Amino acid sequence: MGFKTIEQNIMRNNDAAAGQIRRLLAEKGVFAVNIISSPGAGKTALLENVCPFLKKDDIRFLVVTGDCFTSRDAERIDKLDLPVIQVTTGGACHMNAQIVARVLEEQDLDKLDLLIVENVGNLVCPSGFDLGEDVKVALFSTAEGEDKPLKYPMLVKEGGLAIINKTDLLEHLDFDVDFCVSSIKKINPGIRMIKTSCVTGQGIGDLTDWLKENIKIKKEKNR
Amino acid sequence: MGFKTIEQNIMRNNDAAAGQIRRLLAEKGVFAVNIISSPGAGKTALLENVCPFLKKDDIRFLVVTGDCFTSRDAERIDKLDLPVIQVTTGGACHMNAQIVARVLEEQDLDKLDLLIVENVGNLVCPSGFDLGEDVKVALFSTAEGEDKPLKYPMLVKEGGLAIINKTDLLEHLDFDVDFCVSSIKKINPGIRMIKTSCVTGQGIGDLTDWLKENIKIKKEKNR
Repeated sequence: MGFKTIEQNIMRNNDAAAGQIRRLLAEKGVFAVNIISSPGAGKTALLENVCPFLKKDDIRFLVVTGDCFTSRDAERIDKLDLPVIQVTTGGACHMNAQIVARVLEEQDLDKLDLLIVENVGNLVCPSGFDLGEDVKVALFSTAEGEDKPLKYPMLVKEGGLAIINKTDLLEHLDFDVDFCVSSIKKINPGIRMIKTSCVTGQGIGDLTDWLKENIKIKKEKNR
Repeated sequence: MGFKTIEQNIMRNNDAAAGQIRRLLAEKGVFAVNIISSPGAGKTALLENVCPFLKKDDIRFLVVTGDCFTSRDAERIDKLDLPVIQVTTGGACHMNAQIVARVLEEQDLDKLDLLIVENVGNLVCPSGFDLGEDVKVALFSTAEGEDKPLKYPMLVKEGGLAIINKTDLLEHLDFDVDFCVSSIKKINPGIRMIKTSCVTGQGIGDLTDWLKENIKIKKEKNR
């Protein structure tokens, strides 16, 4: 009986922190994405591929990786000499806005164009938690099967960009691309879609461009 | 502050229901597994491959599939004319013991040898909830990368069987099998391991045999 109240409090505290982050990032003109996927769908690999292009273009970004226990994702990004902060949730299944707020307190946001949150690998829980981001990115891997958007619709509904990753594996899989795409469009007709592969490089440029466009739009709003 | 109490209540209620299920299944000599993996790691496909062999051997089983919203998994198993019950959690990220208890109330357990729970696709939350099963099965897909056992150790720690699935994709992936296996063994030295593929059929016989052995052991305990 009490649970509902407590849960509402948790969400209220989260949403209050998310609201503060959103106002702060609007004020500073920082574009923020929150990338959500299953474990192993390729969030870190995509960042390893996209971030060097951002760096080359002098985009000032920060990656915040969320994991239950390890810091393996952050180590991978750090190895490429890219700015990253690891958050471990101690077993919790999602990032919350309070964690992100604490990370941002330590940052000079005047020197940032883009905040990338790589959420805990989980298609269910993270989509319910607003982190103050501009866009939730729903990332699916071809290896998971084409029905995952349909089975986990909350994330697609909340998302502004859907990525179908690991397209290099398509020739080895029984994966119905049209079904996947049309499921996503049915759940969220306005969502932008990009197909990517870190093996062939498909879509890496599109994703980089999408980020750069959105950074520009955010900066212009800020003027 | 109140949250801990409420959370403890939730776990207490779950564990009470799980205890009742465990006693009931012991009394009836029904072996129960709780299969946990990421979305799209291949839980349903494995059941589509293993269950027909169980049926051929006159093993009396029931599959209970848990999903956030859809009944797609149950439909796939039902299509093969295999006994299945779908549970939708309404967005919740795991099955709980109360749900399983309600399903079992409707069953004649004297006519059952094996209960298979296919949990919601999620590597984090389901491993915390005891469903009264004999064994938690930790299922990983090669497409997820070899570091997932290390990144989601709770499930491996709780598991009695670890499955590395989609071995047919190994030749197309940069997946370190030895690293994966040794991570699993390091977290849980006593865990049984089986490598499977629904494309080549690797390990399907081993998994079927493992289930049959355990059913036999459970029946013998019951005498």
